[in-house]
Amino acid sequence: MTAGTAGTVEAGAGGTEDTRTRLLATALRLFTEHGVEGTSLQMIADALGVTKAAVYYHFKAKSEIAEAVAEPALRELDVVIDEAAAKRRHGAQVDHLLAGFVDVVVRHRRLLALFSSDPGIARAVEASLHGEQDLESRLMGILLGPDPDAGDVVTAHVALAGIGLAGGAPAMTELDDDTLRRHLLEVGRRLLRRPRPPRLA
Amino acid sequence: MTAGTAGTVEAGAGGTEDTRTRLLATALRLFTEHGVEGTSLQMIADALGVTKAAVYYHFKAKSEIAEAVAEPALRELDVVIDEAAAKRRHGAQVDHLLAGFVDVVVRHRRLLALFSSDPGIARAVEASLHGEQDLESRLMGILLGPDPDAGDVVTAHVALAGIGLAGGAPAMTELDDDTLRRHLLEVGRRLLRRPRPPRLA
Repeated sequence: MTAGTAGTVEAGAGGTEDTRTRLLATALRLFTEHGVEGTSLQMIADALGVTKAAVYYHFKAKSEIAEAVAEPALRELDVVIDEAAAKRRHGAQVDHLLAGFVDVVVRHRRLLALFSSDPGIARAVEASLHGEQDLESRLMGILLGPDPDAGDVVTAHVALAGIGLAGGAPAMTELDDDTLRRHLLEVGRRLLRRPRPPRLA
Repeated sequence: MTAGTAGTVEAGAGGTEDTRTRLLATALRLFTEHGVEGTSLQMIADALGVTKAAVYYHFKAKSEIAEAVAEPALRELDVVIDEAAAKRRHGAQVDHLLAGFVDVVVRHRRLLALFSSDPGIARAVEASLHGEQDLESRLMGILLGPDPDAGDVVTAHVALAGIGLAGGAPAMTELDDDTLRRHLLEVGRRLLRRPRPPRLA
């Protein structure tokens, strides 16, 4: 590949977005294999078959890539929180939040596995969780409802931290997505004392 | 303080051990305030009122201090695991492990708070957890018993990760040790389906 590739890849409708998406998928794979620290921008460029200049076109630094890798999960969580907050009853809010949270965890389990083992990603995710949108406070606000006691606060923290971390634990790689989702949901319901939903006919 | 202090502090029966203990307590406090990355060996020396040489006498690098700060908690966990493994019935093993794990978490909640927010400490603890003694496998081995299914594996991971992380969460600083211990234990029992122990008369 020559330096001209950067221009080529960016050209055409959707080209830039495609490169960005491919870049993030490749970065996540390399981060998983080598850690964030052990992955260079050059390695990402090589794996994509583009120049380092093409990578720089999208991201100025590796930390920006780490943040961007985590972003889709956080954006999905943001949507789940909004949807949950829009429900009328508190029980329905908790049920929606729990199911949505478990979905996001399972869908992004590779990212979470990385989160547990790599400070680079962990820092990026933590910054976003406590950033502008303050996802963590909003999650807790819904789980805890209007008048929580100390036991509720402890339970909600154990549930979110436990489900999030367990979802990315190495031992979970043996379970397929559906099995992991079902069990995380069941554990979450037991913790938060939520009933199973009625089976659809 | 002059360079001679290093020799003085080391002198006398128990002097070295005392300095080491004080050094670790001071390091933990500074790590909590400034993060591991934001704390220099010089800052630790200054806070202790000793020379940097005195600090170097005990630890060659900051990463060694981070590991040593985490060591007492891991050693206590090691003891709890051995004690639990020595029980005859599986239920009694799980009960002992859960209570002991919660005790360690509460006793070292400042360290855990640091763990959640600082990659330096997280790395040191992770290395020890998966190191020679492989504390994590032994913990899981006891919790899971001889014939676990996927649900048991998910539950045990949610319980350990959740209790460990929640214990150090910023929101928990409002709770005193006894309250935190009681609620973590209650959540753990609910998760692992263990009965409350009978009240002692």
